[in-house]
Amino acid sequence: MSARKGPTIGVFDSGFGGLTVLRALLPRIAGAHYLYLGDTARLPYGAKSKETIARYAVESARFLEQSGAEFLVIACNTASALALDEIRSAVKVPVVGVIEPGARAAFHALASRFSTAPPEPDVLVLATAATVQSHAYRNECDAVAFRATEFACPLLVPLVEEGWVDHPVTREVLRIYLTEALAHCSPHAVLLGCTHYPLIAAQVERGLRELGSDAVVIDSAEATASAVAGVLHSTAPASTPATFTCYATDSVEKFQRLGSHFLGQPIAEVHHLDLGG
Amino acid sequence: MSARKGPTIGVFDSGFGGLTVLRALLPRIAGAHYLYLGDTARLPYGAKSKETIARYAVESARFLEQSGAEFLVIACNTASALALDEIRSAVKVPVVGVIEPGARAAFHALASRFSTAPPEPDVLVLATAATVQSHAYRNECDAVAFRATEFACPLLVPLVEEGWVDHPVTREVLRIYLTEALAHCSPHAVLLGCTHYPLIAAQVERGLRELGSDAVVIDSAEATASAVAGVLHSTAPASTPATFTCYATDSVEKFQRLGSHFLGQPIAEVHHLDLGG
Repeated sequence: MSARKGPTIGVFDSGFGGLTVLRALLPRIAGAHYLYLGDTARLPYGAKSKETIARYAVESARFLEQSGAEFLVIACNTASALALDEIRSAVKVPVVGVIEPGARAAFHALASRFSTAPPEPDVLVLATAATVQSHAYRNECDAVAFRATEFACPLLVPLVEEGWVDHPVTREVLRIYLTEALAHCSPHAVLLGCTHYPLIAAQVERGLRELGSDAVVIDSAEATASAVAGVLHSTAPASTPATFTCYATDSVEKFQRLGSHFLGQPIAEVHHLDLGG
Repeated sequence: MSARKGPTIGVFDSGFGGLTVLRALLPRIAGAHYLYLGDTARLPYGAKSKETIARYAVESARFLEQSGAEFLVIACNTASALALDEIRSAVKVPVVGVIEPGARAAFHALASRFSTAPPEPDVLVLATAATVQSHAYRNECDAVAFRATEFACPLLVPLVEEGWVDHPVTREVLRIYLTEALAHCSPHAVLLGCTHYPLIAAQVERGLRELGSDAVVIDSAEATASAVAGVLHSTAPASTPATFTCYATDSVEKFQRLGSHFLGQPIAEVHHLDLGG
């Protein structure tokens, strides 16, 4: 990359959720240019086999690398859980997923909260059924000696996609899910293990407080953006704004409309991309 | 087909919802044998292009025909809306979808309810966003001179799949959807235009009554089963039970577990089928 220019960073998700990671990245690296690819024609990845997910994710990662990305962020829990090794083998640029940064952020949050770590630090991971079944967060938490309880919340993605974010139904669904989850653990931290969930982080925190839990809420989108900013250094002046280009494999109109909620700003243009069926 | 034997009938859906159609069919045709195929590895069809949906549906229909089906029921609203002609061209056996029987059942229900049809019979169709966007029900209702208002209810499928059928959250979501829909029309009939919805037919009816509507609820699974039973005649004794064999393209364990709720009885065995990616 030339001097006084920010890096080109590819961000990949099966759909729109990864835009919460892009949203967290935008203010962090001066002058960066982001290429965001949502493989919306083939979502959701959750119900598909590991082989199929790896094939789809590798195709997308190669497209981003060929388009100039010098660094790849896999902003998709399913692909991070099931295909990170395959993606790393398929491209020459560095690759980070969302799971390791999330687990490490929980570790650091608890380390800074307690003078000594709690004897059995307990993390509640809220995620989709597919991510829970992969046990990717539990394996990652095991590596830092945390006990992770993974809890599937299948209704949260549809509620966020319906736009019912600060809505009584979403609050009630969260109350039901959190009540059941807290019957199985007393967490010090709650990790939002799905890229849709940052949009309801405040509702999760409120729900925990109402149920008497003081667990800290960790947003894996923020954690991932922080991890990326920690390893990438821009030579652009600090005030240089970042820019982004979006690609989608299904309807660009739907991507613009739904995606702007996740990104927190309008998406002026989306390029259609055909990666095959 | 040999004498004193029921017909072999193929039933196809992208997932589990079509099992509500199979459930409605089972008691209707003595001695029938059903081959049910859920293309669960490639669901949901809703977000995919017409070409892709047609290709998937034709592959599934051909499999059922080659496996001995003498009649095909497309128990999937998306495939019925977007691929019925392609399926009919691809196989030699008769094919029915779910949309025409649903619209005709609404017509007959209103004709029998009113001595003369209401001057502007109004049907509210509740369906997924994809089915609403296809306007397949509106086109079918136009053909029988009904005015159809199509209303998308994106949260109902996830709620049914979560098993929250007779649940306060589902009642509240229905209250919100029906209040908004009734602000746009005063229907004489409400058509359940998604194969997941028969599981919450009682809740839809209760919600309508609470909002002061006396619209009759039409279950398109029942309507489709009735249409099929009207054209297929079994030579088996009336007491001969029907049997079924299930095929799924994704996890057979998940199909058994989730599918039994839709079918209303346990599914002893599911065969895995690979139709390609």
